[in-house]
Amino acid sequence: MATAAGSYHYEGTEKLLEVWFASTSNDETCDLRKIRREKWDALLKIVRAEIISMIQDDDMDAYVLSESSMFITKKRFILKTCGTTTLLLAVNHLVQMVKKECGFDKVIDIFYSRKNFAQPELQHHLHQSFDKEVSLLDDMFQNGSAYVLGRMNKDCWYLYTLDDCGVEQPDQTFELLMWDMCPKSMEVFAMKVSQDGKDATKRSGICNIIPGIKIDDTLFDPCGYSMNGILPGGYYITIHVTPEPHCSYVSFESNVPRASYENLIMKVLGVFNPGKFLMTVFANSASIAHGSLKQLEEIDTLEGYSRNDHQFCSFKNYYLTYTQFSKS
Amino acid sequence: MATAAGSYHYEGTEKLLEVWFASTSNDETCDLRKIRREKWDALLKIVRAEIISMIQDDDMDAYVLSESSMFITKKRFILKTCGTTTLLLAVNHLVQMVKKECGFDKVIDIFYSRKNFAQPELQHHLHQSFDKEVSLLDDMFQNGSAYVLGRMNKDCWYLYTLDDCGVEQPDQTFELLMWDMCPKSMEVFAMKVSQDGKDATKRSGICNIIPGIKIDDTLFDPCGYSMNGILPGGYYITIHVTPEPHCSYVSFESNVPRASYENLIMKVLGVFNPGKFLMTVFANSASIAHGSLKQLEEIDTLEGYSRNDHQFCSFKNYYLTYTQFSKS
Repeated sequence: MATAAGSYHYEGTEKLLEVWFASTSNDETCDLRKIRREKWDALLKIVRAEIISMIQDDDMDAYVLSESSMFITKKRFILKTCGTTTLLLAVNHLVQMVKKECGFDKVIDIFYSRKNFAQPELQHHLHQSFDKEVSLLDDMFQNGSAYVLGRMNKDCWYLYTLDDCGVEQPDQTFELLMWDMCPKSMEVFAMKVSQDGKDATKRSGICNIIPGIKIDDTLFDPCGYSMNGILPGGYYITIHVTPEPHCSYVSFESNVPRASYENLIMKVLGVFNPGKFLMTVFANSASIAHGSLKQLEEIDTLEGYSRNDHQFCSFKNYYLTYTQFSKS
Repeated sequence: MATAAGSYHYEGTEKLLEVWFASTSNDETCDLRKIRREKWDALLKIVRAEIISMIQDDDMDAYVLSESSMFITKKRFILKTCGTTTLLLAVNHLVQMVKKECGFDKVIDIFYSRKNFAQPELQHHLHQSFDKEVSLLDDMFQNGSAYVLGRMNKDCWYLYTLDDCGVEQPDQTFELLMWDMCPKSMEVFAMKVSQDGKDATKRSGICNIIPGIKIDDTLFDPCGYSMNGILPGGYYITIHVTPEPHCSYVSFESNVPRASYENLIMKVLGVFNPGKFLMTVFANSASIAHGSLKQLEEIDTLEGYSRNDHQFCSFKNYYLTYTQFSKS
């Protein structure tokens, strides 16, 4: 996209929406995966993204999109989109369509989150500020709470969630959002160097991060990379790479439960070598990751990185840490 | 002040500024208390407040203002002003005046904070949003970091501080900001019920919160109350009461060090009986209050109150907790 100054900018920073559904009658036949493909296509049209490929197992359908990813389990919907997509314009449509197509008539929790954009002025006006996004969501949901973690005038991470007990089953999400990437580590995510997604997954070392996962990877022309990985039980990892040096950005996200995330963090940093990153860990009381949040509080340096900010939040049923590091 | 709807609104919510000064030559004769009264009067004119009375001891000068309080020790300046005062318009003047009048040529840390206003549209345009306040401060300071604790779309607390090691001596600040006050507890803060400040201090039970302090108290006509209390060593407490039922608000602030604040919290709540309150505890590594922050994490109910939000932040040299409670 052309910026005001005329130079190309790609906004790698994703908008991330997770919605948990339920039916008031506890109808066990309700299942988001019964919704037909054309319905998802119509939803994604509103968002300005489209499906590129799909993998599935007994627990989850995982889609690579033209702009990031979508994951669908029985009760949980996750949509992550980057660039200038218009994710929040589709929330109302999503809720209505899910009610009509599969009978879930209740949203039990939502999580909308994103890092601050590098160039907010290039976004659709509804996404240009978090205040506007919050207004839109407040019009749709009772009990919505909006938070900013980190520094509002530097790097920060926004979250909108429902102030409710919400999800009772063990649930956790780990995110590592990285920027100012080492150009050398980014070279492999271009057609000039790698043949295809599979080749980039291997050359980069992504294949070693969580061994044994089922992978769907795409290398874009001339550069850029997306991958989804799934594991039995409804677990996923997803990685998206914007390799261009002037707007480099990589996101890593997973709901794989870990009693400690330190090993995973070191693996991901080893593959991507960012100049800066922020990390969020979300876990509810039932999750084994719950204890890992306290461990993270103690870590104020990581090989070659020093911590700028650390915050810990207690919600009704969830705990969250936000941490931001830079190369020392 | 008349609101758009024509009804009277008084904004009890204070703007709070704390600035720590130093001299690059380590000149031990520099002392903020050497600055003449007329210079402080001129500063307060910019803020739209004035001095009502003053007490002092060997370590501190404490002023009750027409709108809240001002505390001056050798190296530390604290200004807290409510209503529609224009505190941030005076920061540049303060820094220049201090340099000229007493030789401190360096700001080593600043803390600007406030709760969200009940009626932001009644404020001077520079104070109508935290974004605007941050822009103003960013123009003056390098390394300023802006944070929002709590819910941006409900009740929250804003903080701007320098990302520096700053103050090395033990330092802590405890604040309890209360609203939706019990009307019965507020009756005593009016001329109809109490004779003067001293009488209101006694009848309300404020005199028992920290026994033995030197108190300067004022009861306003027809209602409203301000008090400063000082203790040897540069310690203060300050309480401000806006008793009108439709905009009731009380603030309690102190830098008295405590290994645990639980007893103090219960005393303050006992006197004022708020419907809702938020609490912040700020402490640096050298402070004995440092450990109290972890204790507060465990407290999710307090007699009659339940917790809505709890956040813990680690800065370079300071730790902060933010907690918000409502009557169950």
